[in-house]
Amino acid sequence: MLAEIITIGDEILIGQIVDTNSAWMAGKLNNAGIRIKQISSVSDNREHILKALAEAAERVDLIFITGGLGPTKDDITKTTLAEYFGVKMVENTDALNNVLRIFERYNRPLLAINKKQAEVPENCEVIINKNGTAPGMWFNEGGKVYVSMPGVPFEMMYMMEDEVIPKIKSLFKLPVIIHKTILTVGEGESFLAERIADIEDSLPDYIKLAYLPKLGQVRLRLSGYGDDEVFLRNKIDEYAAKFMHRIGNVVVAEEDIPIEKAILNFMEKNNLTLSVAESCTGGYISHLFTQHAGSSTVFYGGAVSYSYELKESILGVKHETLCQHGAVSEETVTEMVEGALLNFKSDYAIAVTGIAGPGGGTSDKPVGTVWIGVASAQNKMIKKFTFGNRRQQNIERSATMALSMLNTLLKHVEK
Amino acid sequence: MLAEIITIGDEILIGQIVDTNSAWMAGKLNNAGIRIKQISSVSDNREHILKALAEAAERVDLIFITGGLGPTKDDITKTTLAEYFGVKMVENTDALNNVLRIFERYNRPLLAINKKQAEVPENCEVIINKNGTAPGMWFNEGGKVYVSMPGVPFEMMYMMEDEVIPKIKSLFKLPVIIHKTILTVGEGESFLAERIADIEDSLPDYIKLAYLPKLGQVRLRLSGYGDDEVFLRNKIDEYAAKFMHRIGNVVVAEEDIPIEKAILNFMEKNNLTLSVAESCTGGYISHLFTQHAGSSTVFYGGAVSYSYELKESILGVKHETLCQHGAVSEETVTEMVEGALLNFKSDYAIAVTGIAGPGGGTSDKPVGTVWIGVASAQNKMIKKFTFGNRRQQNIERSATMALSMLNTLLKHVEK
Repeated sequence: MLAEIITIGDEILIGQIVDTNSAWMAGKLNNAGIRIKQISSVSDNREHILKALAEAAERVDLIFITGGLGPTKDDITKTTLAEYFGVKMVENTDALNNVLRIFERYNRPLLAINKKQAEVPENCEVIINKNGTAPGMWFNEGGKVYVSMPGVPFEMMYMMEDEVIPKIKSLFKLPVIIHKTILTVGEGESFLAERIADIEDSLPDYIKLAYLPKLGQVRLRLSGYGDDEVFLRNKIDEYAAKFMHRIGNVVVAEEDIPIEKAILNFMEKNNLTLSVAESCTGGYISHLFTQHAGSSTVFYGGAVSYSYELKESILGVKHETLCQHGAVSEETVTEMVEGALLNFKSDYAIAVTGIAGPGGGTSDKPVGTVWIGVASAQNKMIKKFTFGNRRQQNIERSATMALSMLNTLLKHVEK
Repeated sequence: MLAEIITIGDEILIGQIVDTNSAWMAGKLNNAGIRIKQISSVSDNREHILKALAEAAERVDLIFITGGLGPTKDDITKTTLAEYFGVKMVENTDALNNVLRIFERYNRPLLAINKKQAEVPENCEVIINKNGTAPGMWFNEGGKVYVSMPGVPFEMMYMMEDEVIPKIKSLFKLPVIIHKTILTVGEGESFLAERIADIEDSLPDYIKLAYLPKLGQVRLRLSGYGDDEVFLRNKIDEYAAKFMHRIGNVVVAEEDIPIEKAILNFMEKNNLTLSVAESCTGGYISHLFTQHAGSSTVFYGGAVSYSYELKESILGVKHETLCQHGAVSEETVTEMVEGALLNFKSDYAIAVTGIAGPGGGTSDKPVGTVWIGVASAQNKMIKKFTFGNRRQQNIERSATMALSMLNTLLKHVEK
């Protein structure tokens, strides 16, 4: 069963927001056995929305629409859907009660435009929005299903999980789609491809292999399509095992998780703990770890030591070291990582100090210069990197390299 | 001049990655005076790519394509472009030299598939990729321009900024597009709309107003389209001033920046400094601040105190407080924010402690319970929030609320 996602909103087309809804929806739908044929982002423009709906209806059976359901004048999705289906707008009692409920909860006066939120095209089935006033709408017309949802992520998410996906599953017999991802670190895409070429060539046509490279990491994704879940899962596992046998040395995880989650899993299994001392990454590495549920078992926390003073007071970096060698130096990063181990009492520690830019560079320490240290009581690894001049990317690359180095250091642990 | 962005890659359509390229490209193109009519994400499938190209050529004049240029078998953009234009593939000397240069730099052996990276459709002009082996390609066919670029963000970004946008500017006379954004905090979209309805109604048709709500914040965006930049800018400023006069009390920034950047700007102007004590937000608030260039003037850093021990040792939270009231309590967050002020010696501090979930909740402290404190030597504000059960959203909402509270506290500062 094929689907298209249409996201509506000028803010996407002028680059003011990143459309994160589509990826989330695509993931959920894919797991339910629905293949996304296309994602289209269009503007808050009547003709354009009408055209996008008609084009999607030619391509697919299920059309998921987000955005343009707000109470303000720039939001026209609802009336455009009514025009598309050639029906009129009517006030829906359930949707109105939901609006009243929300306004009562927040004890705010109800305005005319809020009441208008309860108006929907008369041919739709209303999906109640637990977290907002804009109702979701389910249309079944001309053999196609159209689902319109708010663009506010958490309103859409609850609606998809609690209402839309269960309803689709109850109405349609869906095929099986199985993905298996292998995360590798430290070997380029083309070298990996060369090493596994013969296995890749032997894949049956219902299994596809994709390479997803990102900053020194490559994810290999096997995707199987069919009707027999057990058969498909066995076949995918069989080929995954062949790949593992060949390139196991660079594999960090045999599931679709980021490297920090693989590290957390490994450290938890081995009863190891971790702390960080972040300067130029400014909390980003901590955030990567702590976004994962259960990270507190392994991750103690640490310091975001942006200033000289905090490097000294929290991490115990010596004042002379900072004055003599500077904050971005082998000496400082070494004292930072040792200070983290000592003060935060974790088994492992990561320290990063660098010049993320765009300012702050000098001729011998240009923007993009980053020192990274990872250490345990037994082992230590200190490295210097020279990245580019984009702040965001320098932060991300520093974090990725720090995680990669920690992953290497952890290989010394007896498994 | 209208453009379409086509992103190619199964990984987008199964939700494995979020397409951040499109928003970045859309922002840059928009600033250059190019309107994005549509963003389409399609799979690594020959027929589908051909169809998407043909459809885009009907809609727009400029077509920007990213993705599908890797050396592996799943990447077929290049040969599909050759098929689309009805031309053959040829080896390009500049592209080959670039591949050789990169392999020399990393001292890796050149494989046959790497050499193939230098093959391009014969009708294209090659855009050299400084950061990777896949060349960019510029096509001028049938009165339309097609630009194909790698999907790896930093390869695409350099190519767009250094080559593609300058080339477009030199070839076409582009119209003027001006956006002005006003960031508001603490008032709902519909209430704002009600307060400014008469001004919104009086807007000329070449200026559009959009409401962009997100977690307690609403950005109002005025967009002007025309040929006369000075006239347009004056008109936009004139209407922005009217909005400011009406709703100035809830405005945080008169430019398109996030709230933490508005806070950094205000604090820098007033010579104020900031530190943080983060538990459940786990470094995310620090990351929000430190992603901005120049944040070190204001932001000292702080503690990510995930464990009891670090709350005690770095922040000086009393052991009895933790045992008696728990880590998620008014007492603990108060000691955390006071500890941050004292130990990190900043003028202001933020502290957050809560249960981000999905585990760790109890009947009196369910998942989503979060205590936030903001303080200076003179003022203090402590609040309890009850969010939902999604970890990521609890982290984000906690951060947004903490920033919003700090923003309120800063209003006491004499301006």
